[in-house]
Amino acid sequence: MTDSPENPWRATALTLFPDAFPGVLGASIIGGAEKSGIWQLETVDIRDFSTNRHRTVDDTPAGGGPGMVLKPDVADAAIDSVARDGRPLIYLTPRGKPLTQKRVRQLSSGPGLIVFCGRFEGLDQRVIEARQMEEVSIGDFILAGGEVAAQAMIEACVRLLPGVLGASESADEESFETGLLEYPLYTKPREWKDRAIPDVLLSGDHGKIAKWRRDKQIEITKARRPDIWDIYVAADAKKGDGHERD
Amino acid sequence: MTDSPENPWRATALTLFPDAFPGVLGASIIGGAEKSGIWQLETVDIRDFSTNRHRTVDDTPAGGGPGMVLKPDVADAAIDSVARDGRPLIYLTPRGKPLTQKRVRQLSSGPGLIVFCGRFEGLDQRVIEARQMEEVSIGDFILAGGEVAAQAMIEACVRLLPGVLGASESADEESFETGLLEYPLYTKPREWKDRAIPDVLLSGDHGKIAKWRRDKQIEITKARRPDIWDIYVAADAKKGDGHERD
Repeated sequence: MTDSPENPWRATALTLFPDAFPGVLGASIIGGAEKSGIWQLETVDIRDFSTNRHRTVDDTPAGGGPGMVLKPDVADAAIDSVARDGRPLIYLTPRGKPLTQKRVRQLSSGPGLIVFCGRFEGLDQRVIEARQMEEVSIGDFILAGGEVAAQAMIEACVRLLPGVLGASESADEESFETGLLEYPLYTKPREWKDRAIPDVLLSGDHGKIAKWRRDKQIEITKARRPDIWDIYVAADAKKGDGHERD
Repeated sequence: MTDSPENPWRATALTLFPDAFPGVLGASIIGGAEKSGIWQLETVDIRDFSTNRHRTVDDTPAGGGPGMVLKPDVADAAIDSVARDGRPLIYLTPRGKPLTQKRVRQLSSGPGLIVFCGRFEGLDQRVIEARQMEEVSIGDFILAGGEVAAQAMIEACVRLLPGVLGASESADEESFETGLLEYPLYTKPREWKDRAIPDVLLSGDHGKIAKWRRDKQIEITKARRPDIWDIYVAADAKKGDGHERD
């Protein structure tokens, strides 16, 4: 019915809970884009690669301690079952490098990704090293497993694929894309519960509106995220210096 | 069949995509815990609070620009439909305060949460202010909507509720709970693809094992997250000073 690109962007999730997929990825514009063939989702059940008849995949941690560890041979066999096709192999873990919009943009412009969803205490370190897995964290909090993190990461990437966001939408002016947090938004009605839309936004003066928005972005970023503000200032200083451009 | 606590922890998600729920929250120990009555999930369809027969909920941004903004009256009516019961009202947005394990622990020990899932360019600023919404971000990347972020946040909280993690699991020794990233994990087999488990972990010497793990935590945290390392060092210095304890 719809145009199917010949080479859709491909996401493969290795998981102990295939039932958790597609989850949010089946809804809204993201689910619609899969139906249109813009991207493809594949899930692999790690448990299918258990080497024993009880279908166990984990064992106790060497050196003692709580919880269970995902066995290296099982994880490795599950990874082996997936056609790599130049896609990065990502392991979602709170120990990983924080995911950024920059990395999302890179992943989105590539062939896709393979994501290994952690469970239990974690995955045997030897597979992480042998497979040179890219360890990524979506935030400084602990989940029950990597499935929801995988879905967040995939959604962020798919959103940027050509044809996913409508013409009236924009991926450009939002938080992080400009290096600053976004300005406040207002829509009709003009007065709501004794709260008015700021006059400048109704002035029709595009220069003033742009300046007001920029000032708000700076004010909000400084107040809420001094870490992002520092990066922005440093990048801006570099840009201003002709010798160090790019 | 199972014990149902009298006052389950309650999560309410306000969303334009109720089909995206329960998503991952229906799977694994998190879904099991809901079936056991440890927590409860409610979804509210924001579109039900549209004030016109076309069921629209958004309008163009005041001052121009791409995308659409969620109307304040619609959002407000949707929020009004939910029994607050002392629960915080959270708005998931990249402009928010980054979610931390500390905040997850606070939310988990309270009555639950109400989470408003953003869509389009965003929500009219006046509702955010009038409702004193707590703006929270799960990470420095852009999603198509707040649904997957809401699921991540709810999963992180539910995981900490009494009775959710099994006796063999632990919520204590993991990344962020100790203030450091987690040490590497190993399990059987002892040799895998010419890679051995580090000798110290098989030595049976608990003191040495604890020291090795601590050293690895410090090494990994310094290398990967100098920001977290700085916070850890500052907190440690404060603890060491008897005058400033707590």
